[in-house]
Amino acid sequence: MSYKAPVDDMSFLLKNVFDVQQQFDGISQYQDFDYDLYNAVLEEGAKFAENILYPLNRDGDEEGCQHEGHDVTTPKGFKEAYQQFCEGGWQGINGDPEYGGQGLPKALHVLVEEMLYASNTSFTLYPSLTAGACSALAAHGSDVLKQTYLENMQSGVWSGSMCLTEPHSGSDLGILKSKAEPNEDGSYKISGTKIFITGGEHDMADNIIHLVLARLPDAPKGPRGISLFLVPKFMVNDDGSLGERNPVFCGSIEHKMGIKASSTCVLNFDEATGYLIGEPHRGLACMFTMMNKERLSIALQGVGLADVSYQIARQYAEERIQGRSSREGKQGASILEHADVRRMLLSMRSVTEINRALAVYLGMNIDLDEHATDIETKQKAARRVALLTPIAKAFFTDSGFENCNHGIQVLGGHGYVREWGLEQFARDARIAQIYEGTNGIQAQDLVVRKVCADKGAAITELFDDISETIKQSSDSDFKHVGVSLEKHLSVVKELVSVLLQQNEEQGAAMQGGAVEFLNAVAYVIGGWLWLKQLLASNALTELEQKRKLAASEFYYDHLMPRIEGYAQSIKNGYHLTFALDDELV
Amino acid sequence: MSYKAPVDDMSFLLKNVFDVQQQFDGISQYQDFDYDLYNAVLEEGAKFAENILYPLNRDGDEEGCQHEGHDVTTPKGFKEAYQQFCEGGWQGINGDPEYGGQGLPKALHVLVEEMLYASNTSFTLYPSLTAGACSALAAHGSDVLKQTYLENMQSGVWSGSMCLTEPHSGSDLGILKSKAEPNEDGSYKISGTKIFITGGEHDMADNIIHLVLARLPDAPKGPRGISLFLVPKFMVNDDGSLGERNPVFCGSIEHKMGIKASSTCVLNFDEATGYLIGEPHRGLACMFTMMNKERLSIALQGVGLADVSYQIARQYAEERIQGRSSREGKQGASILEHADVRRMLLSMRSVTEINRALAVYLGMNIDLDEHATDIETKQKAARRVALLTPIAKAFFTDSGFENCNHGIQVLGGHGYVREWGLEQFARDARIAQIYEGTNGIQAQDLVVRKVCADKGAAITELFDDISETIKQSSDSDFKHVGVSLEKHLSVVKELVSVLLQQNEEQGAAMQGGAVEFLNAVAYVIGGWLWLKQLLASNALTELEQKRKLAASEFYYDHLMPRIEGYAQSIKNGYHLTFALDDELV
Repeated sequence: MSYKAPVDDMSFLLKNVFDVQQQFDGISQYQDFDYDLYNAVLEEGAKFAENILYPLNRDGDEEGCQHEGHDVTTPKGFKEAYQQFCEGGWQGINGDPEYGGQGLPKALHVLVEEMLYASNTSFTLYPSLTAGACSALAAHGSDVLKQTYLENMQSGVWSGSMCLTEPHSGSDLGILKSKAEPNEDGSYKISGTKIFITGGEHDMADNIIHLVLARLPDAPKGPRGISLFLVPKFMVNDDGSLGERNPVFCGSIEHKMGIKASSTCVLNFDEATGYLIGEPHRGLACMFTMMNKERLSIALQGVGLADVSYQIARQYAEERIQGRSSREGKQGASILEHADVRRMLLSMRSVTEINRALAVYLGMNIDLDEHATDIETKQKAARRVALLTPIAKAFFTDSGFENCNHGIQVLGGHGYVREWGLEQFARDARIAQIYEGTNGIQAQDLVVRKVCADKGAAITELFDDISETIKQSSDSDFKHVGVSLEKHLSVVKELVSVLLQQNEEQGAAMQGGAVEFLNAVAYVIGGWLWLKQLLASNALTELEQKRKLAASEFYYDHLMPRIEGYAQSIKNGYHLTFALDDELV
Repeated sequence: MSYKAPVDDMSFLLKNVFDVQQQFDGISQYQDFDYDLYNAVLEEGAKFAENILYPLNRDGDEEGCQHEGHDVTTPKGFKEAYQQFCEGGWQGINGDPEYGGQGLPKALHVLVEEMLYASNTSFTLYPSLTAGACSALAAHGSDVLKQTYLENMQSGVWSGSMCLTEPHSGSDLGILKSKAEPNEDGSYKISGTKIFITGGEHDMADNIIHLVLARLPDAPKGPRGISLFLVPKFMVNDDGSLGERNPVFCGSIEHKMGIKASSTCVLNFDEATGYLIGEPHRGLACMFTMMNKERLSIALQGVGLADVSYQIARQYAEERIQGRSSREGKQGASILEHADVRRMLLSMRSVTEINRALAVYLGMNIDLDEHATDIETKQKAARRVALLTPIAKAFFTDSGFENCNHGIQVLGGHGYVREWGLEQFARDARIAQIYEGTNGIQAQDLVVRKVCADKGAAITELFDDISETIKQSSDSDFKHVGVSLEKHLSVVKELVSVLLQQNEEQGAAMQGGAVEFLNAVAYVIGGWLWLKQLLASNALTELEQKRKLAASEFYYDHLMPRIEGYAQSIKNGYHLTFALDDELV
């Protein structure tokens, strides 16, 4: 069973739904780009994903990573694939052109990321972490650091890792203990233990550049006393060649539910030499400038895995003859004819296609935030990115996991055995709900920082844009869709008021409904993105138009009603739950 | 982290909520039993589950079953545990007393099953399949077959398997191909390949008795041409000793997402000697007499795994210090203080406690169906069992998987690594949504055979009982709960009308909403069982009363609202989805 990257749908989003080049008007970095170039990148990305990464996926899961001494070995074929990945220039496609990056827009990059995650999530995590490290370094590193490290990282010759978590310090980074002591030459001695470090050690790149959070001796307690350091695995000589091994060693790797070919390391820093990135005690802020991109990357893990699950389940359903067709009443039909199988497949596709659309929209806003010359555009984009990132991260990965499980269910017993690969997609998808901030943390970020903090201003601004699309639809063939969306939108608008009021009256108890609120908002945004796609669908072939229509109807009829359940629950409030004595929970 | 079987809650259900002995009044087989005996059984079961099975669970998952030649080896410790299981008399607790079974009620047996699944699902599947085979043999086997096999099976000295699925024939048994050719002595030669055979081969019992579906030479096509045969691994001599090896061999075992210590075998029957059970061509009917019990058993896998996940997650949450307490605003609180963690834990507990209640209720109805002397009681019980079995199987296992995933989420990254065991519970739980009839098949069974076939009569009878409880609550402290339940009940009553009408007008398209309908009904039944528990809660300690109240409030405020989402989706209908050309799905 094969995976085909959905290049046509991706092109449709970039050009017809969002017309990103139009949005990028005036941004010099993107002026020489056009849709032909974007399509060529997508086509090449598809080839790499389908032909190089996908065939390594199952075996990589079976073999996993091996840890011996200080070394970690990746599964057979990974090293060669990584070589090709670097040679193809994939590491730096969204990277800073000043240091060898290709400077292509995030709106395009997210689509490439989707393909990579779909075809081989474990593999893709290595370059994803490198890209995150590059972003932080590019934004906050000194020129010397950038000159020494960034080009080799953006080419993938050296990879990167992000060292945040410690055994006692996960979601709460404020209590981390790793120490940084100044050396005389301006560098630092970094000591401490970091856990859950993706790509912390492996055998694919010549060097690994760790970005590490640690405390300076004079650091205030809590999150405002954390600084960010660059700690290379091998020291870099003045001529750029590799020098001594820096004492940062992999103590063990985790044995996990999934992403088994991605090394998840315990790293021990034993007075390893490091270099400060950005200001002292401002490490968390530096880290968070790249966190939006990292969260969006992980969000795409959910989209990619849901899509590959859909594709395999769809192929299986067509070939599996079982039972009487409930459509035509005849014996010996494929299970694609069964109402419940159709429900699961359309559920998968209809969510995946709006998640993909939101990824492009969010990527485009990251681009506008970074590059727009017009200050209003830039600021609006920044607000939109802040608002939508936690939604994308949590919703894409929650719905991704749900849809991977639909995929298993379509295959029945065959979905549960390893041979078919569906269960691997679900296992690989499960972690995305946890790392880069659990989905509970995302929801809390949304309601506390992104909605209550500005009293609903940014989300109202989004709702206004949704209303604008509804207005546009009023003299189209999709007027009825707009009418339905309007109804759901008003429910979610009311929820914003409810949340703000609960926040006033009940304080943090309100956060009990955060996950449901995030979902309710996400389903309305999905409805909006379906409407936007329908309004642009005359650019599609007749078959593709019909497929879009089918998926959007399913979404409106059967998934948007979930909003009603979330709304009732949120209105009931979590004050009772919150007030309970611990022993009653 | 330890598992404690919830013995007190189980006693409360048996005695105070359902007063099963009162219900069993007049059933001679149960007259000598009392609550002291039931409690003693539960206490002993708890010891066995907690001390013998639970410690083997994680290592069993790591080691898995090994296949070599024709043999399958279970993980270290399983054989000894199985020995103790048999010596404790656990195999036959619900078995036919005429052949060494203890004849204890199913209402009690389900609770023991929950403990066993919670502590070690892989192990528990072996005796569960044996119990299923015993039921079918007891109900349909000839006296000679019963005398030869049943006592050794009910003691567990010999185990059983159920051989239904073939490579091309899963949910659709009507197309199976295995053949049975008559021998001159009245036995048959069985040939064919069976897959997904749980406990089809292992090293724990002296003999394995396979119940096998196959076709006689003169069999009509389809499901009415299938007969049931008993095929022993070792032939049994006239004196009861074991004779020759029968040619039924394990060709391979599956590598699965979970239940790795449960052997899932490909069995090749090569003219193996078998004996007809029941009438020729009536094999499916024979099989289905025990299917309700098997489905309920698998349902309990969902309950047990959700409960053990809750217990571990609850312990972890109390010990894990992380972040500011959103309850008390102070730094350094346990994550149990976080609103979202409370939401997940209460979600787990509030569903588990109503699923457990429904299991007892359903078990009690199985007992009444089998043993009640009053024909009306018996027939009502039979209708209730038919109606509730698919609901229990699908809802317990779907919510079980959801809740195991909540458990992972509470632990964050630690939930995803194998060390803590939470991810194993989720992997082990995932199969329960698939085997013994996928949950989609359960939902189809519910809407087609159990609701539409009698035009809603049986489900209306259930709704009347629910209304009766609401009436009882009207002069209690829980009147408001009854009022809320009434409201949800009316929504679900309307859904029955909607379904019946869709069935008339749209035919099989209606089945697209089957899973949602099943869930909506299940949540209302849950609300009923919460009300019943509250009405009986004065028998509890003050702390336990408060815990019941907390969980029931959570359930009503935050889980029952889901009904509204299902209702809207069902009312929108699946006729559009159903009518789509295949290429649009």
